[in-house]
Amino acid sequence: MKKEDKPLILVTNDDGVHASGMAALIDAVKEFGDVVVVAPHQSQSGMSHALTLKTPLRLKKIMNTSDVTVYELTGTPVDCVKMAFDNILGCKPTILVSGINHGSNSSLSSIYSGTVAAAREGAINSIKSIAFSNLDYSDDANFDFIKPIVKKVVADVLKNGLSDGTFLNVNVPYTDPENLKGIKICRQARGVWVEEFEKRVDPVGSSYYWLTGYFDNFEPDAEDTDEWALKNNYVSIVPLSFENCNFKEVDDLSARYKI
Amino acid sequence: MKKEDKPLILVTNDDGVHASGMAALIDAVKEFGDVVVVAPHQSQSGMSHALTLKTPLRLKKIMNTSDVTVYELTGTPVDCVKMAFDNILGCKPTILVSGINHGSNSSLSSIYSGTVAAAREGAINSIKSIAFSNLDYSDDANFDFIKPIVKKVVADVLKNGLSDGTFLNVNVPYTDPENLKGIKICRQARGVWVEEFEKRVDPVGSSYYWLTGYFDNFEPDAEDTDEWALKNNYVSIVPLSFENCNFKEVDDLSARYKI
Repeated sequence: MKKEDKPLILVTNDDGVHASGMAALIDAVKEFGDVVVVAPHQSQSGMSHALTLKTPLRLKKIMNTSDVTVYELTGTPVDCVKMAFDNILGCKPTILVSGINHGSNSSLSSIYSGTVAAAREGAINSIKSIAFSNLDYSDDANFDFIKPIVKKVVADVLKNGLSDGTFLNVNVPYTDPENLKGIKICRQARGVWVEEFEKRVDPVGSSYYWLTGYFDNFEPDAEDTDEWALKNNYVSIVPLSFENCNFKEVDDLSARYKI
Repeated sequence: MKKEDKPLILVTNDDGVHASGMAALIDAVKEFGDVVVVAPHQSQSGMSHALTLKTPLRLKKIMNTSDVTVYELTGTPVDCVKMAFDNILGCKPTILVSGINHGSNSSLSSIYSGTVAAAREGAINSIKSIAFSNLDYSDDANFDFIKPIVKKVVADVLKNGLSDGTFLNVNVPYTDPENLKGIKICRQARGVWVEEFEKRVDPVGSSYYWLTGYFDNFEPDAEDTDEWALKNNYVSIVPLSFENCNFKEVDDLSARYKI
């Protein structure tokens, strides 16, 4: 499927193939090469790095123009990436972009996000991978002004690469485009989601719960964090790794567990 | 719910509340304190750190003895942990244990696993958390011989704690119990899951896919990895962190993106 010397760009998301953020992302990246979209047929928000193991997957090609081919899959974002690698592309893509997510994936949200998980799956497979998210939660969120940001980051990654095992989590603040101050490389802010389960009663008298909550930022004044950058109208880029071993703790525990 | 000075132990899994590994885990930990189980009502294998956002959750208390209370929830393992913290326990548990998973969660599988994700969610909330998995995939897998291993690790964590943000991924090899060589603290082996989507045709002629595959270990001879430990009849313990930022890459990228 890859044409000679032209980058092959794999595009996915977790809001579903028909989301506005998907169209904006395709628009932004198609000048860089051939675009293949493999995305969930419906919303998969909050699906993290989930795989579909208990139900079969259905795959459908829904568009095929001169420079963009679009597939939808009845699975998670990570299923989409695996399906693309194994069954659609025929070779490794040059780059993977995921998004543009409708809502924030900063700090801890990167753990719960399907958009970020797709980029993690790319990195696991040694593909340069970037997740993009828009902090504008409104129904008519503006994705257009994010396109130049996508182009800038994709061009940099295509030119300079990323270190092995690293992928990028890019979040764009909710602000008027003229107020954007630039791009800031950050670490994730430390904090926790404070959950509140909203209890309701259905028409037959049984109770049910909706998960809701808010992010409690433990370090709101730390200027090197993504939360600070976004609050101060910077685009935040956090380089993430899929390597999760705490090597210091390996030493500490080894001293306690003698074989 | 917590009695004076008695540890409160939160138990969950991803194989579902009625799984054999759940019963074995309850048996193993109940001597340490009061046990509250909040687990998925059915299998949630491969659900990683997914949240349920689009459908409401149903919660049901299904058992209440003098020392064990059991709830089932129509959600993911991470939903169960959040529900326990916010809506059931009334205070933070002393420790969280997840499993015993029916199948391996070594190396990269820790990213896809719901069992490990539950422990990650505990660590995010500053709870000492441990995931246990059994490499025996057979229908009548032996979970009994794992109980003393669970007791040993839980006793150590209750006594010595874990460093902030760290949780443990414990895997038990598939071997005759008398061949077990001991416990080995490890890092995750590097490798990749090689996917193969098995294509089938349903009775009405439409195609569908099942995800399958195998783990390709890039470093089979590395004696400090979990894969090596398990192949050589050691119980592997990998200390994991939920902090994913690649701090070195923050410096490299900052040099490229001047504000």
